[in-house]
Amino acid sequence: MLSKPMELLRPSKGMINVHPIQRGGILTEEARKVLLEWGDGYSMCDICLEGRVDLLDKPPVKRFKEEVAEFLGMDEVRFTAGARHAKFVAMSGFKGALVVDSLAHYTTYIAAELNGLRVYEVPNTGYPEFRIEAESYTDVFEKVKEETGDYPAVALLTHADYKYGNLADAKKVAEICRDYGIPLILNTAYTSGIMEVSGRETGCDFIVASGHKSWAATAPIGILATTFEFAERVFRVSEVRGNWSGRAFTKKEVALFGCSPVYGLPLVTLMASFPVVKERVKRWKEEVEKARWFVEEMEKIEGVMLLGERPKNHTLMNFETPSFNLIAKKHRRKGYFLYHELKERGIFGVQPGMTRNVKLNVYGLSWEEVERVAEAFKEIAEKYGLEVED
Amino acid sequence: MLSKPMELLRPSKGMINVHPIQRGGILTEEARKVLLEWGDGYSMCDICLEGRVDLLDKPPVKRFKEEVAEFLGMDEVRFTAGARHAKFVAMSGFKGALVVDSLAHYTTYIAAELNGLRVYEVPNTGYPEFRIEAESYTDVFEKVKEETGDYPAVALLTHADYKYGNLADAKKVAEICRDYGIPLILNTAYTSGIMEVSGRETGCDFIVASGHKSWAATAPIGILATTFEFAERVFRVSEVRGNWSGRAFTKKEVALFGCSPVYGLPLVTLMASFPVVKERVKRWKEEVEKARWFVEEMEKIEGVMLLGERPKNHTLMNFETPSFNLIAKKHRRKGYFLYHELKERGIFGVQPGMTRNVKLNVYGLSWEEVERVAEAFKEIAEKYGLEVED
Repeated sequence: MLSKPMELLRPSKGMINVHPIQRGGILTEEARKVLLEWGDGYSMCDICLEGRVDLLDKPPVKRFKEEVAEFLGMDEVRFTAGARHAKFVAMSGFKGALVVDSLAHYTTYIAAELNGLRVYEVPNTGYPEFRIEAESYTDVFEKVKEETGDYPAVALLTHADYKYGNLADAKKVAEICRDYGIPLILNTAYTSGIMEVSGRETGCDFIVASGHKSWAATAPIGILATTFEFAERVFRVSEVRGNWSGRAFTKKEVALFGCSPVYGLPLVTLMASFPVVKERVKRWKEEVEKARWFVEEMEKIEGVMLLGERPKNHTLMNFETPSFNLIAKKHRRKGYFLYHELKERGIFGVQPGMTRNVKLNVYGLSWEEVERVAEAFKEIAEKYGLEVED
Repeated sequence: MLSKPMELLRPSKGMINVHPIQRGGILTEEARKVLLEWGDGYSMCDICLEGRVDLLDKPPVKRFKEEVAEFLGMDEVRFTAGARHAKFVAMSGFKGALVVDSLAHYTTYIAAELNGLRVYEVPNTGYPEFRIEAESYTDVFEKVKEETGDYPAVALLTHADYKYGNLADAKKVAEICRDYGIPLILNTAYTSGIMEVSGRETGCDFIVASGHKSWAATAPIGILATTFEFAERVFRVSEVRGNWSGRAFTKKEVALFGCSPVYGLPLVTLMASFPVVKERVKRWKEEVEKARWFVEEMEKIEGVMLLGERPKNHTLMNFETPSFNLIAKKHRRKGYFLYHELKERGIFGVQPGMTRNVKLNVYGLSWEEVERVAEAFKEIAEKYGLEVED
């Protein structure tokens, strides 16, 4: 053991990677440039005079924090070890029941579990669109009140979900929450950083974002943005005191582990990519156009149908593909045939072994690349005798 | 606002960086080589079939986990968002009182606070050596019993502390803990990865390690290693179930946020550096020799005295430097003069503005570099009229 060196080659290298979680995290050239200079450990802590790196002027983390708050239309921002950690931090300010949409990412449930919050789900409309209707929040709020005697302490809405890429009506949900006086966490892991999101405009109380999923940063980096109203509560500072030494750490924020552990490459790459990110969100409309075009092309293939809302308002999409599944049943490689056929055509990121559904994300692909991906699926379909419309 | 581009130049670039937290985190050539290939977001999740990246074969995370467990002489390993997160995970398995050495890093206290554990400190011997005597753990265990009616739930020892670089007698503390049946967490943030540490040999129940502080990895990456006895408890899986959807996530580990967020560069660089790390720990003796030589040289300067245990058993050290402090009082740059004088000599990492104490780490410097650093201090001392022995 320990003798054979480990292969560290990236499986997707050189290919078009349509993996749903990868598209928005691909580094910008600007971020790639800082990798070598800032790669070492806690490189940002070189000059830390404040005991909290988010207060630094050199590199300008403090200023960057303010810029991100402005960009997201919120008052206060912290950087976290991923959106999952940001959700954990936001929820740490509450006790009791949490209402979440039923398309929420599993890390939402885990963050609730870790905070001892009881989870109540907002149903979706089911097959084939799986929509979250804003009004359903009202029903669940009332249900929680009936069951527990209290309205929920906090609610969460997944802005665009990981499964169908449905874009929820955040503004409407925020209005309902505001009527009830229930704070709303908006999980924008798949939206902010690729499309414009403003907390002020939406009316939510927290924005959770994912740097490595949608802001072209290296993992892990999440963002938690909130209003002055909630900042003190969720970014609460330490109150422990050493019983012998008398030591205290009154500047350190407890749910962030004192000082968030992201002060090396994750934050530097987020900063380096930020100017590009601010620009790219303005081009979201064209990204959605590409996605809609792609859906049209895919649905020309026999037995392929988009799941989730129609038309698409996001670049992450999920097709049901029973026709590919039938091919898989007879193929010697079973469900893996599709993965291999795509790989041969330079396309990566579709779950290996899965042919009942195809989930992918075309964000940031050029028109030419989107065409190449569509072409590959059609070619494979034809190769195995499926009808493909002209 | 948002107009002026942010400067992202590393302040320590091109200099010898003696910052205590930086020496063990400097990337190996092997780690630098993987930066570009694996820089994008959650790059390791390209092919995740298991829903937990620590179970992957490609890249070989599962195998690496086993190799790290073997290297640390433990049974089970998980990767975390820094040692602070690893401590949080370890402590999440306990309720009640935690006994810690009074030299513990602040993140130890924060992790306890976040888990609702009450902290009791083991005193140190105070000025000038600040030693933690193993036997003091007995006293504190008895004191906790007396005060609360129960022995503490868990104890923690900081293997080498961040303040003086004292190396504690982990084996002796582990023996005492074993006698009491109190599990011991050994925080090796400043030891494993630069010196040999074996949980089996020491007899501790948990090892916490820091990849970015001592294993030549990019931040954030921590390691939590434990025995079969405690693995299930601290790596407990999710039990939440969606009340409408019935969704459950029974493979996801709660205190790790489901699947630890480190599956991009932090873990890949840890893996890339590992073969070098396994070798370099064998050269620890020479690193300590360099440190001892450096102490001798520094103490030739008038008014400079090592704090902490003597002789040094670690490369992190803290000097009291009242003579430099007197210079600072008259200098137009005040306490910052030392920082600037060192910087002019290509040496970085001493806290700007601080002259009462000088804290630094010579780990991994060549003999020539250690000499350069000592020479710089002596030169500065002489420049300002301090006596320096030949």
